[in-house]
Amino acid sequence: MTSGEAVERHGSMVRLRADHEAEYVRLHAEVWPEVLQQIRASGIRNYTIFLRDGLLFSYYEYVGDDHARDMAAMAADPVTQDWWRLTDPCQQPVDTAEPGELWAPLRQVFHAD
Amino acid sequence: MTSGEAVERHGSMVRLRADHEAEYVRLHAEVWPEVLQQIRASGIRNYTIFLRDGLLFSYYEYVGDDHARDMAAMAADPVTQDWWRLTDPCQQPVDTAEPGELWAPLRQVFHAD
Repeated sequence: MTSGEAVERHGSMVRLRADHEAEYVRLHAEVWPEVLQQIRASGIRNYTIFLRDGLLFSYYEYVGDDHARDMAAMAADPVTQDWWRLTDPCQQPVDTAEPGELWAPLRQVFHAD
Repeated sequence: MTSGEAVERHGSMVRLRADHEAEYVRLHAEVWPEVLQQIRASGIRNYTIFLRDGLLFSYYEYVGDDHARDMAAMAADPVTQDWWRLTDPCQQPVDTAEPGELWAPLRQVFHAD
């Protein structure tokens, strides 16, 4: 990120279904350009997803000023909806997720620039 | 990070013992300055630790050219060793960790700048 730019760090987690792991990895090796454009348009930067032991961990930096609005814009994007129709079946919320929540937010306990 | 700077992204995970959670969070709210200096001297930038459901997730960017050497320098630092004497008892490796491994590395499956 650019030094001095306001940024919120977002971490979240979701289970990856064992029988969908290869498909999820394959899909994410070639994410559709329109999906990447919407991610960027929604203020998301430096976005990485990690995998281990059937768990996915997402890290990104949000540089906009209304995260809920920008996530709603992403959810309303037709191409993103098509993409999620492929990726959602690969995923399963963790046991402690809120009702209707797929990616469950993590709590930040430390940061050093 | 500065645009164009070479960077490796490192994600890792470890369990946090339930009876040590409050202590870990308290320690990390005021990390010793010498520990932060060693982190920086070892080429670590934009370092965040997240917590959920008894799991800690670490994300950082490494800007040096020899990760193993720089991590060894950290492990050899006396103040860092004192710090780890406080934090190590809070943590427990995940079941799939390698022998002797505390923080288990994650596999990156997606990145977008």
